[in-house]
Amino acid sequence: MMPTHVTLVDVGPRDGLQNEKEPVSTEHKAQLVAMLQAAGLKEIEVTSFVSPKWVPQMADNLAVMAAIQRQPGVRYSVLTPNMKGLEAALPTKPDEIVVFAAASEAFSQKNINCSIAESIARFAPVVEFAHAAGIKVRGALSCALGCPYEGEISADQVEHVVRLMKDIGVDHMGVADTIGVGTPRKVQAAMERALKHYPLVEVSGHFHDTYGQALSNIYACLELGVHNFDASVAGLGGCPYAKGATGNVATEDVVFMLNGLGIDTGIDIDKLVDAGAFISGVLGRPPVSRVGRALLAKRAG
Amino acid sequence: MMPTHVTLVDVGPRDGLQNEKEPVSTEHKAQLVAMLQAAGLKEIEVTSFVSPKWVPQMADNLAVMAAIQRQPGVRYSVLTPNMKGLEAALPTKPDEIVVFAAASEAFSQKNINCSIAESIARFAPVVEFAHAAGIKVRGALSCALGCPYEGEISADQVEHVVRLMKDIGVDHMGVADTIGVGTPRKVQAAMERALKHYPLVEVSGHFHDTYGQALSNIYACLELGVHNFDASVAGLGGCPYAKGATGNVATEDVVFMLNGLGIDTGIDIDKLVDAGAFISGVLGRPPVSRVGRALLAKRAG
Repeated sequence: MMPTHVTLVDVGPRDGLQNEKEPVSTEHKAQLVAMLQAAGLKEIEVTSFVSPKWVPQMADNLAVMAAIQRQPGVRYSVLTPNMKGLEAALPTKPDEIVVFAAASEAFSQKNINCSIAESIARFAPVVEFAHAAGIKVRGALSCALGCPYEGEISADQVEHVVRLMKDIGVDHMGVADTIGVGTPRKVQAAMERALKHYPLVEVSGHFHDTYGQALSNIYACLELGVHNFDASVAGLGGCPYAKGATGNVATEDVVFMLNGLGIDTGIDIDKLVDAGAFISGVLGRPPVSRVGRALLAKRAG
Repeated sequence: MMPTHVTLVDVGPRDGLQNEKEPVSTEHKAQLVAMLQAAGLKEIEVTSFVSPKWVPQMADNLAVMAAIQRQPGVRYSVLTPNMKGLEAALPTKPDEIVVFAAASEAFSQKNINCSIAESIARFAPVVEFAHAAGIKVRGALSCALGCPYEGEISADQVEHVVRLMKDIGVDHMGVADTIGVGTPRKVQAAMERALKHYPLVEVSGHFHDTYGQALSNIYACLELGVHNFDASVAGLGGCPYAKGATGNVATEDVVFMLNGLGIDTGIDIDKLVDAGAFISGVLGRPPVSRVGRALLAKRAG
């Protein structure tokens, strides 16, 4: 039942860096992507095409996409929440685009000022247009395990939104625990609902370590055979709902667990720690990754 | 198969504080114990009876045992590695004593200057004497998942030392991942060996979060029915083998996962976070617990 190979998408360059207040240079972003692919990552979420008013850190999206040195066999994705974003992104030739909806009605209203149904209607043409251009569409379902406004989200509600996204042709379903409150059995229940509408190969988990639960949640997903996960090198990306708390699970920590389980990722953990140390140095703070800290401490002797 | 109730031993006052360089006052230690029992902990490892030359932080063991306000239904344990320790501890009336052996020959030699067999021979009379005094003996098997000198430890080796401890009458077997390198399947393999010689109710897991693996390891143990775990409030206790890295899993993080799994612990997580915040304040640093940090950040609004 447990998979023998897992594919990790490193979302550090986009999801990880997007909330950083101090601008990170285009060169440093491209360098981070280069180090991730050198470490063996085969999927990297590079940047987003959203209004620089909302996410100033990603204003250099065109420059970043031009600066990365693409490597054969590696897929590069970008976040494009609307047609304007997709149109801007297309000339940069992303392999995949990412669109997202919330599992929580309150979150959708507060975060993007429209209902879940409206948000999905809004990106239906994005999906259509991307497909016409031969680009795969990854869907992310945020707040699938809990919402900062509504609290718990039921598996029924997860399935409802999964179905809406399936209906407009989204190719891949990423179940995202945006605030990190999920625990293994609840995560399995949500995943099982996604798996009713998407094949195993097109379902992934995106977990936040805000309450330290991310690795157990990934382990619980592995038990269902799920073998695609997002992670963020050095644990880049805090939690906007609890200042000072942890956000995305660190790629290093996931790889350490998978190595121990004998599950292949194709990732060189030492080079991954290098990438995490590099970007943490740029940001002027230690990596959030426990594996990163422990291995760096060991190297320091 | 999953247990409906889990008992946690908070080892923060002993294992957590023992390596702190700055002395923590007896009053603060007693206050920590008081806050843990107020939070619902039913087992607390209070102090150790070892030479103050080796562990100066525990030199006030008699004073701490005198200062705690015992609560009916709570069990108080102390570490007594030898007869001298036990003799000093007995007048303080601990409910349980803890003795430990290493699963790694190299670790035993480097850490306590004798072979595993010698170390166990040395505490055989401790077990006998404790039993004569009506005191339960908990055994801790350190480095059960890996050793800083030898690397991986086989399940065969774990079983070998478990059997030696069983032979001298140790009542309870705590499988300890001292350097935090264990991952779920290897932890299950080690646990299964302990369970060949001890009943489920007398086996526990002691996990370190140095590589972020502790909660997934606990989850993997729950799947075997194991329902006793050590944890340390606020994640007290660093890792002496990787400076700046994380040590004991934080009790708050374990309780959060168990709550999510619907497994009863009798512990009030908010009061537990209070205890963690209190001792972290004494030590002048934020709690290592991710749940502690997230909930404190939420309280701060």
